[in-house]
Amino acid sequence: MWRVVLAVGLGAAFEAVLGWLLRRRRPASATASEVIFFPSRVTCTEELLAGAPCACPLPHGESALGRLLVRVLAARRSLDLCLFAFSSPQLGRAVVLLHRRGVRIRLVVDADYMALRGSQIGPLRKAGIQVRHDQDSGYMHHKFAIVDKKVLITGSLNWTTQAIQTNRENVLVVEDQALVNIFLEEFEKIWENYNPVNYTFFSKHEKTGIENG
Amino acid sequence: MWRVVLAVGLGAAFEAVLGWLLRRRRPASATASEVIFFPSRVTCTEELLAGAPCACPLPHGESALGRLLVRVLAARRSLDLCLFAFSSPQLGRAVVLLHRRGVRIRLVVDADYMALRGSQIGPLRKAGIQVRHDQDSGYMHHKFAIVDKKVLITGSLNWTTQAIQTNRENVLVVEDQALVNIFLEEFEKIWENYNPVNYTFFSKHEKTGIENG
Repeated sequence: MWRVVLAVGLGAAFEAVLGWLLRRRRPASATASEVIFFPSRVTCTEELLAGAPCACPLPHGESALGRLLVRVLAARRSLDLCLFAFSSPQLGRAVVLLHRRGVRIRLVVDADYMALRGSQIGPLRKAGIQVRHDQDSGYMHHKFAIVDKKVLITGSLNWTTQAIQTNRENVLVVEDQALVNIFLEEFEKIWENYNPVNYTFFSKHEKTGIENG
Repeated sequence: MWRVVLAVGLGAAFEAVLGWLLRRRRPASATASEVIFFPSRVTCTEELLAGAPCACPLPHGESALGRLLVRVLAARRSLDLCLFAFSSPQLGRAVVLLHRRGVRIRLVVDADYMALRGSQIGPLRKAGIQVRHDQDSGYMHHKFAIVDKKVLITGSLNWTTQAIQTNRENVLVVEDQALVNIFLEEFEKIWENYNPVNYTFFSKHEKTGIENG
């Protein structure tokens, strides 16, 4: 009789510990699911952005920018952006597309780099997207995005065509919820800090201009 | 009799699966051990760099720069640096210190930002540290370090005093070996690519200068 009890008991313990371990493994195993290095080769991104095949003469197929676009376009509920510089027309189009799909977009940028050539900030604001900027003496130099409060996209890459096409850059895609939460908390802090009700005089910052990498 | 066999069998299976799961968990659980946000408060870093207490009037205690220095100074065998801009005197001193301790230092920088004000590249080269730079039209815009081929330090932060003290920045410290290996591979590729034997004419790059964040 005690052998039956032992066998059943061991079986139950086995199942319980197995379940517990599998549950525990999930968050950690999802970490750093992708690293994207730049520069990106120039490819057609119409299929990703318009959702239909394109016959233009640009090369078709995978590229670093394409992989980044796929990650951004995966947003279904929210996209929190904290970007030093944002002038890439493809990434701008992706963000407007998400906005039209009902994804809640929040965008934080650096005040001095809002007006760089080809900046996407004007078009994004016109499309109805909330944009907030710093009013500090230093730069808002982050370059991260949080998709659906679950995926962190971060690295050295500014969302500009020059960076995408000519610079050596890295972008990490991280699905570790603990790490995502740390960046979410930082985002919420900055978002509140840059609330327009807190804006004082929109001063010309005195910055050296040379150390702005 | 079959009940004994069943009990023993289940026990053995339980142990085998448990061991396998625990072994599998290890690499993933070591990921993203630290996130450091900047700007850093200004504190005395003498204790970290000179290894002796300091009585200077600067505040003592923890800071973002202090935490970064601790991570860099942990190197025992090698330090591979891939930095767009490097002018922080404290980080420069840490790298020279490691070099004198026999740690193998390799430093890759951007050619255009080598000469920024307060650049550490001259002093580091004089100390005997190997420095290589790009000769591309784009920027070498990475900002990462690999300690002992085991720990990756990466993010938005250039190693400059302005960035450290005034910018909003992030630095991730990652101990996931798979991820470290991806960056190591990229480093080796860049290191070989920037081998001085491959240098051609040291041309004046035509860069716009505005999108250099």
